[in-house]
Amino acid sequence: MIRFNCDYGEGAHPEILRRLAETNFEQTPGYGEDEYCARAAEKIRELCGNAALGVHFLVGGTQTNFTLIAAALRPHQCALASASAHIAVHETGAVEATGHKVCVLPSADGKLSAAGIREAIENYWNDETHEHIAQPKLVYISFPTELGALYSRAEIAAIREVCLEKNLLLYVDGARLGYGLAARGNDVDLPFLAAHCDAFYIGGTKVGALFGEALVISAPALKEDFRCVMKQRGAMLAKGRLLGLQFLTLLENGLYFEISARAVRLAEKLSEGFRAAGFPLFAESPTNQIFPILPDALLRRLSEKFSFATTARVDAERTAVRFCTSWATREEDVDALLAALKNS
Amino acid sequence: MIRFNCDYGEGAHPEILRRLAETNFEQTPGYGEDEYCARAAEKIRELCGNAALGVHFLVGGTQTNFTLIAAALRPHQCALASASAHIAVHETGAVEATGHKVCVLPSADGKLSAAGIREAIENYWNDETHEHIAQPKLVYISFPTELGALYSRAEIAAIREVCLEKNLLLYVDGARLGYGLAARGNDVDLPFLAAHCDAFYIGGTKVGALFGEALVISAPALKEDFRCVMKQRGAMLAKGRLLGLQFLTLLENGLYFEISARAVRLAEKLSEGFRAAGFPLFAESPTNQIFPILPDALLRRLSEKFSFATTARVDAERTAVRFCTSWATREEDVDALLAALKNS
Amino acid sequence: MIRFNCDYGEGAHPEILRRLAETNFEQTPGYGEDEYCARAAEKIRELCGNAALGVHFLVGGTQTNFTLIAAALRPHQCALASASAHIAVHETGAVEATGHKVCVLPSADGKLSAAGIREAIENYWNDETHEHIAQPKLVYISFPTELGALYSRAEIAAIREVCLEKNLLLYVDGARLGYGLAARGNDVDLPFLAAHCDAFYIGGTKVGALFGEALVISAPALKEDFRCVMKQRGAMLAKGRLLGLQFLTLLENGLYFEISARAVRLAEKLSEGFRAAGFPLFAESPTNQIFPILPDALLRRLSEKFSFATTARVDAERTAVRFCTSWATREEDVDALLAALKNS
Amino acid sequence: MIRFNCDYGEGAHPEILRRLAETNFEQTPGYGEDEYCARAAEKIRELCGNAALGVHFLVGGTQTNFTLIAAALRPHQCALASASAHIAVHETGAVEATGHKVCVLPSADGKLSAAGIREAIENYWNDETHEHIAQPKLVYISFPTELGALYSRAEIAAIREVCLEKNLLLYVDGARLGYGLAARGNDVDLPFLAAHCDAFYIGGTKVGALFGEALVISAPALKEDFRCVMKQRGAMLAKGRLLGLQFLTLLENGLYFEISARAVRLAEKLSEGFRAAGFPLFAESPTNQIFPILPDALLRRLSEKFSFATTARVDAERTAVRFCTSWATREEDVDALLAALKNS
Repeated sequence: MIRFNCDYGEGAHPEILRRLAETNFEQTPGYGEDEYCARAAEKIRELCGNAALGVHFLVGGTQTNFTLIAAALRPHQCALASASAHIAVHETGAVEATGHKVCVLPSADGKLSAAGIREAIENYWNDETHEHIAQPKLVYISFPTELGALYSRAEIAAIREVCLEKNLLLYVDGARLGYGLAARGNDVDLPFLAAHCDAFYIGGTKVGALFGEALVISAPALKEDFRCVMKQRGAMLAKGRLLGLQFLTLLENGLYFEISARAVRLAEKLSEGFRAAGFPLFAESPTNQIFPILPDALLRRLSEKFSFATTARVDAERTAVRFCTSWATREEDVDALLAALKNS
Repeated sequence: MIRFNCDYGEGAHPEILRRLAETNFEQTPGYGEDEYCARAAEKIRELCGNAALGVHFLVGGTQTNFTLIAAALRPHQCALASASAHIAVHETGAVEATGHKVCVLPSADGKLSAAGIREAIENYWNDETHEHIAQPKLVYISFPTELGALYSRAEIAAIREVCLEKNLLLYVDGARLGYGLAARGNDVDLPFLAAHCDAFYIGGTKVGALFGEALVISAPALKEDFRCVMKQRGAMLAKGRLLGLQFLTLLENGLYFEISARAVRLAEKLSEGFRAAGFPLFAESPTNQIFPILPDALLRRLSEKFSFATTARVDAERTAVRFCTSWATREEDVDALLAALKNS
Repeated sequence: MIRFNCDYGEGAHPEILRRLAETNFEQTPGYGEDEYCARAAEKIRELCGNAALGVHFLVGGTQTNFTLIAAALRPHQCALASASAHIAVHETGAVEATGHKVCVLPSADGKLSAAGIREAIENYWNDETHEHIAQPKLVYISFPTELGALYSRAEIAAIREVCLEKNLLLYVDGARLGYGLAARGNDVDLPFLAAHCDAFYIGGTKVGALFGEALVISAPALKEDFRCVMKQRGAMLAKGRLLGLQFLTLLENGLYFEISARAVRLAEKLSEGFRAAGFPLFAESPTNQIFPILPDALLRRLSEKFSFATTARVDAERTAVRFCTSWATREEDVDALLAALKNS
Repeated sequence: MIRFNCDYGEGAHPEILRRLAETNFEQTPGYGEDEYCARAAEKIRELCGNAALGVHFLVGGTQTNFTLIAAALRPHQCALASASAHIAVHETGAVEATGHKVCVLPSADGKLSAAGIREAIENYWNDETHEHIAQPKLVYISFPTELGALYSRAEIAAIREVCLEKNLLLYVDGARLGYGLAARGNDVDLPFLAAHCDAFYIGGTKVGALFGEALVISAPALKEDFRCVMKQRGAMLAKGRLLGLQFLTLLENGLYFEISARAVRLAEKLSEGFRAAGFPLFAESPTNQIFPILPDALLRRLSEKFSFATTARVDAERTAVRFCTSWATREEDVDALLAALKNS
């Protein structure tokens, strides 16, 4: 079975394993107060062009999302998100378990827009009964989205402007950030994100690490006591250095960007292959996830050798599915899949 | 600096790193539904002598504690624990953050007793105002305790009996379980724990793993939907196989018990050394943590070469401190510490 | 100013005040353990035709909703509701503050249907990633809905059937239950609700009481420890007898049904008046709330003498508004409003 | 049965019932935005000598406590309270249900002291592991305490000083505030409380009202969005005017202070009677609660005609019990109790 169903099917980039082994018997302080975390945080501040950023290393994406949101909101406040957002759908109510509502805004493609946010705030929250409605305080977007779409600089800047105007925080879920930054046509980079978001995270789990997400916080109010909230939410790893070392390895010489770019290139190859074979795409994704619409008969045959995820039923005979590449994808596996397509 | 301040200062047993590297490019399903988790769970069931146990792999101890407790209690129920229990003191209110009170019972040595639990229930909770008091439903004990003490079979069996009588669940925090099981004089083993607790965990973070705790659940009501609660609490690792593989490595050929025993032997050597040098112990610990009472002047001198944790101020000139050994402790470091003592 | 903007603008039915005064100096046990609560609960069991029902008296609707839902759900479970449901919109995230998601189902008219619930469960929750999605356990409907619509016996019975099949609890918010039961064409009654819901409440605040909601619980699992959850959520009134006495007054001789019927008759008079004057209704409501679509110019003029609530902007020149009658509405005020319409 | 077991056994002061009846058919806005609430709040600001105070009317004490605390704390913060504090013992874990730990400080008499708070903060919270410990942010004291003790101006001023120094909020639970203010020897008054606390409440439920507590907030950060948190916690009464009117009645002409003083005088009479009959007091209370230590045989006999609460078992033959007076206590009932004592 060749797995394209997700981008967390393998372990870590070998360089990470090498350095874990190399440093294994070093003795360091626990809970992220070690040298590797310090250096990785420093590297991230440098890459973001802002020496004042708070940087914290957490284990997983759901954990990062609810810890940040719990730290950001007062009891009656809620997060705004697209109806297909990860926090709205795939985290078993993790944000709600911290006491906060996730208010979803309609979105055709899974992206929020500045106009949509403004309209929602002005129509829905700006009335006389506002005390009876959970109050929006944080806008959650993903870069890339669940369907691999990206925001442009202009879009993020516009959202940022609405956020400033309406007193909202902007938080970007970057579980697949590397693949987004490496996408063709993308104009967003780390300094831009750091300058326009109150917080965002650089995903490691899906981009070369064994596990780990690097949360970057620029909002001063969120920086102060964040480690207490991390500890409370089980998000402070005892051997925090494992996180620091991984992000240091990924970021100090550009490995993160390099492996992301390679994965995106393989995804493009797949994407072109599907198109060339006459299959439309369910969503336009310039990132490492490809969503072809395929006949069920073909899917049954492919599933004997390849794994993929189901995205949506399209009609009686066709289904949109997801193929992911990752830092670990082998080009020969991509070729095998494309060959299987041709023989179909 | 030679670190004795904690038992999570190094990485992992080299065999774990070897196997992580060996299996790195295997593609497995995520979220703990892989072969390694299945085999590790099966091994744990075998070691516990009970094929029906639920086994789940979580990342850290605080996370394991609050996830289990949140899954076990109804909204108005509380956990009973010793006043020095980890959940009562060192988890930043993590259990309370899930909505539940931790009710502490007095304890001279950090252990709960069957008689103490019974007395508390009968005096405190058995009155007419019970609806106004958080209702106890789960007894939390640690094996070993924060100060390295152990419960005997007889003590646990007696606690179990009270729990059955009073309709309480019994949960054992086993962050340092290996060191407890390996202690001189201990008569508890895995089958005994599995038979007498509703849930307990086999600590990995402090006993040879990079991270990870294996939660063993015997209570049927807790088994059913536990994975949903794990996901909600950020406790379901995307690459769950990392946990399965680590526990498989530790448990399939007895490595866990072997490295635990070695650490305990080194702790005994330290303990005897402190006693021989004329320093009393703050607490009797047959496990990997040693709590000598040392003059502050000596501590200042030791602290130039060795790290340790502060436990309690004893009098104007002496402090009780903690030295930990672990699976990673080098005998030469123990010898160096003892030599430094003699020269004092 | 004549107020039609809500149905909680006045105090209580005079008979309630009379009996509060009459019994004022009686000494009773607190927290709902008095004779009046016992008798009111007994009366409700009798009216529902089920001697085994749990009956509790709470102060307000939001409180009743979140207390019941918090008592009913395990941590990872959610409530299903219409997108316009009170718990989804107008309670400042109160259910989420207890840790639970409210999952909304699309609905044209604010009502849920058996088919809609079944389809949602089968399409959305019945897939392989179910552990990553909050699990539905309770269906919340309102009788009447926010827009005054009612469910028929057949509709509720069908929802009940889906609930039984899918292992869901059915809970009915009856903030305006009296007005629903008294509506023309309604075929639902208390015995029917008691037999088909796991819990529902008989609203007092909006139907003649100073405050208070009588929660009726038939599901055995919810009955056992409900008072503990009430106390924890601040929902156990110290002088509980105030609630018992009010419901006893309302229910023992049919006053609740009588005053509800009168309010509905006045609402019908209003409704016919709006129609006769050529104004369409935004929603068909046979209950005490009427939603005419009126020209903004008329609304401006009416608002000098009458208060009403804004429901929705309909087009550039017209707005749907809400006029409520209640147990306290004076027929002369209804006539004055209708006269004002005619003169418009 | 003559009830001395609590101070919430009767309804309300007749003047309150009279005004409820008088205003019953007035139409007012809901949710506390009516004229009576505005006037009562204004009166409280005037009595406190501070026109900038936030004033909110809630239904009950538990609700007031957890709503205020939930609004005041960040997720990882805790409240400090005496081990016998109402929030620590008698609210079914209501504060914990909002996610926050209640950290108890030892106290011989149920009072906290400035020195005790300072010592706890400096010894317990001021160490290197502070991120692992719930962080204190609010000091909770009761005036009077559960055992009827009072704080002097000097004591509160000293606590206030520690709070300012350690960045803690000071909150005073005034469920029985009237009885405390009316006590012999008391030197605290409303302006003093308003000037020294971040929030406190003027208890109505136990002091003449049907129900209701007037929460007074001086801390600017707590004032801003408090009504949203109230609504979320079910603490915003639909017919808020009932609360406003009751507090207006109690406070506008001094009725609150007058009835409190009368109850305290009757309690003193009781207290002196117990002493004269040779029975010691379990706690010195100058307020409306009296705690004599009585032989069990006498208690059995008294219990045929009088109700009282059990406070603590003192020895094999004696029990400390509680007799309460209230605004509603009849002097003849006090005399009957004293007569029963003499005949014993």
